[in-house]
Amino acid sequence: MDAPTRLLIHGAGGRMGQALQRLCREGEGCEVVAAVSRRVESRVVDGIPQFAASELAGVPEYDAAVDFSLPEGFDAILDLCLQRGKPLASGTTGLSSGQQSALDAAAMRIPLVWASNFSLGVAVLHDLVERAARALPGWDCDIVEAHHARKLDAPSGTALTLGMAAGEGGATPRYASIRAGDIVGEHLVQFSGIGERVELVHRATNRDIFARGALHAARALVGREPGRYRVRDLLD
Amino acid sequence: MDAPTRLLIHGAGGRMGQALQRLCREGEGCEVVAAVSRRVESRVVDGIPQFAASELAGVPEYDAAVDFSLPEGFDAILDLCLQRGKPLASGTTGLSSGQQSALDAAAMRIPLVWASNFSLGVAVLHDLVERAARALPGWDCDIVEAHHARKLDAPSGTALTLGMAAGEGGATPRYASIRAGDIVGEHLVQFSGIGERVELVHRATNRDIFARGALHAARALVGREPGRYRVRDLLD
Amino acid sequence: MDAPTRLLIHGAGGRMGQALQRLCREGEGCEVVAAVSRRVESRVVDGIPQFAASELAGVPEYDAAVDFSLPEGFDAILDLCLQRGKPLASGTTGLSSGQQSALDAAAMRIPLVWASNFSLGVAVLHDLVERAARALPGWDCDIVEAHHARKLDAPSGTALTLGMAAGEGGATPRYASIRAGDIVGEHLVQFSGIGERVELVHRATNRDIFARGALHAARALVGREPGRYRVRDLLD
Amino acid sequence: MDAPTRLLIHGAGGRMGQALQRLCREGEGCEVVAAVSRRVESRVVDGIPQFAASELAGVPEYDAAVDFSLPEGFDAILDLCLQRGKPLASGTTGLSSGQQSALDAAAMRIPLVWASNFSLGVAVLHDLVERAARALPGWDCDIVEAHHARKLDAPSGTALTLGMAAGEGGATPRYASIRAGDIVGEHLVQFSGIGERVELVHRATNRDIFARGALHAARALVGREPGRYRVRDLLD
Repeated sequence: MDAPTRLLIHGAGGRMGQALQRLCREGEGCEVVAAVSRRVESRVVDGIPQFAASELAGVPEYDAAVDFSLPEGFDAILDLCLQRGKPLASGTTGLSSGQQSALDAAAMRIPLVWASNFSLGVAVLHDLVERAARALPGWDCDIVEAHHARKLDAPSGTALTLGMAAGEGGATPRYASIRAGDIVGEHLVQFSGIGERVELVHRATNRDIFARGALHAARALVGREPGRYRVRDLLD
Repeated sequence: MDAPTRLLIHGAGGRMGQALQRLCREGEGCEVVAAVSRRVESRVVDGIPQFAASELAGVPEYDAAVDFSLPEGFDAILDLCLQRGKPLASGTTGLSSGQQSALDAAAMRIPLVWASNFSLGVAVLHDLVERAARALPGWDCDIVEAHHARKLDAPSGTALTLGMAAGEGGATPRYASIRAGDIVGEHLVQFSGIGERVELVHRATNRDIFARGALHAARALVGREPGRYRVRDLLD
Repeated sequence: MDAPTRLLIHGAGGRMGQALQRLCREGEGCEVVAAVSRRVESRVVDGIPQFAASELAGVPEYDAAVDFSLPEGFDAILDLCLQRGKPLASGTTGLSSGQQSALDAAAMRIPLVWASNFSLGVAVLHDLVERAARALPGWDCDIVEAHHARKLDAPSGTALTLGMAAGEGGATPRYASIRAGDIVGEHLVQFSGIGERVELVHRATNRDIFARGALHAARALVGREPGRYRVRDLLD
Repeated sequence: MDAPTRLLIHGAGGRMGQALQRLCREGEGCEVVAAVSRRVESRVVDGIPQFAASELAGVPEYDAAVDFSLPEGFDAILDLCLQRGKPLASGTTGLSSGQQSALDAAAMRIPLVWASNFSLGVAVLHDLVERAARALPGWDCDIVEAHHARKLDAPSGTALTLGMAAGEGGATPRYASIRAGDIVGEHLVQFSGIGERVELVHRATNRDIFARGALHAARALVGREPGRYRVRDLLD
């Protein structure tokens, strides 16, 4: 049996950070060697060593970092991964274009992935959408996404990246957004021809899939060549 | 067995007018005694007497009129039905507000129905949507409709009347429209609560349902009190 | 503001019993005056008095009982509600036909409801399905339900009661069942005509809806005439 | 502009044969040089030369044959294509295992395709299903298909071939079938994981897609190496 991957979790105090720690305790082949959040109340919580952001330089050795923090904290974790030559999987949203460029530059030296959605199903859907678009030239392409009523941005980041996959296949997608109830996240990519239609759908019912996917991506980055990977490049 | 209902078809040259005549020939309990269109090439086509719009005053006695014409021809058929005291089922779109008021006034004297969609399924859906909205106070209500790429107006008239039904039940619907391929017509009314969702869907795959519904409505108006009916008031 | 409804929860140790207590603590207009389970470890848990099944006769006064226990414990709670003249909402599955008859007999003296699914959405769907079946005579009716892979019975109890609603409307439903992943519960009732189709769908994404619905039903029974109610009779 | 492909249509009197002739007249880059059916009433119909099955040996030169006939007529067209060294696209259902073996043997000498469904969308879906199955190991796979009430076999041939595609990707699909109304054909392949789900759907609303797909396949076979192709091998 392989040794567990040693993880640094950055943004450990947020909803995703908490989910990441819980899943690692429940066993996903990972060991959290450092949970970094803005403020720390105890040194160890449920067996996991806690660090404040100000102590980032002193965290122990790790195999990969997972980052679900905020744009203002992002530069620090990217720098640390560069200094130590370690992979980074980041789901921090709202990055500036400068930060996205810094990701591209860092990808010359370390393997990394940045995504708005780490679920396995969405990664697979990206691949299917690009292939469908390529095989169905001239068909209309529409993307409908639905999320809970508190989500402010529309279309969702995931819808936009699905649209980019459709675009790589030659389609020009249109978008519609629904904000209702407590929907975790649903995406429909529909290709309409004459007399027939292909619908590709992803339904998320539990937010843990995003954390589980990020853990999978982080593990899959270990030992890879430097580069900016997509989640779907990291499927088994 | 009942005698067939004697019908006048107004707008007989259009796609709906042609479908109405074909369905009556195939047997829907109706006999077309006059097919009225702008121009007439033969007096009888497939056994059905043809009249030009200019000859409208001289058509034989009928039990009900079905109208799928244009706003500029609409006043003439409404006047004829008033003069003869006969019911009118109209699916002519684009009526002015003055013409809609004329319909309201005429409804004091004859039974009539005007609708943008005469399909049985949509009529039932109206009823279900109003009941669902009433029983699910506080749930979000979204209406998504899809039609062929040549349809210019959005949301569809049917989506708007479904939204009115939801509104009568207390909901405030939001709309999204898809224009793609050759989709005949699909309407989804979705009620989203916390932890659960109700979806009410109508899918049309054949335009004949609109003609068949109009014939049903026309027959169902015969012998009724004067009034402005909705399609769903005329279900069996 | 109304005084909270005083509840007895029977089967308090199970998954539903735990959810009921949690929801009452979070505030659903209810106060749990007695949580009854087979074995009791502390007298009070999170502020709620705990009783063993053997102590049932001595529980304090309550306004309504909610029961999610097992067939072998069911008779005791029904007897208590009869003795005290209090309403009962029960979701205990696997009752014998003798126990169902006992429910019918008890309904002469107290208001009660028994259901395999207390969610608001499913209660509304029952009503819609019956109306749709009545309004769409001759259309084919199919029910497709999907649940997690661990569910053994098929079709689900909810699918069967939806089928009964369709039957009351004159339809003869056929059933298909899917057991996959961790699907909480989905039910599609589809009416297919010629050229069109009506689909009525319920999707559950969180099990709390069943507990919340049971609390709602229990409160709605208080002050009613004796009788055996359906969940949909108790909607606002 | 390319010269039109010269086609022989075998089974020209059936529903598919009629649709093939109509589409070729409307222009799909094909010219029908011989329409072969069991009995012939006129030598030329709508400009297309007609031949009786007994005259098959004497038909003029053609580039590809399209066959939608019956098992008892199938051997004759396969033999003719072998004699003349011409491609064959066949959608004849109900072939015996001996006839399927004859197809395999013939594929050593001519390019051919046999399929129960020639629509472009279904061909694409086969590819997507295999890829999804491969990328989602351990997820449950369910296939639900719906067809008109007159269809007797279940699951549909298309569902079974989709299931084979899933199987090639490592999944073990389960099937459910709906027979209702006049549904042209719908196939859902659903992959269910924990907390998420991927649904791949094809909806046919017009039978012409099957004829159009067969014409496309026949044209795409011209000039290929001998072999037994799948429809998805012949996409552009």
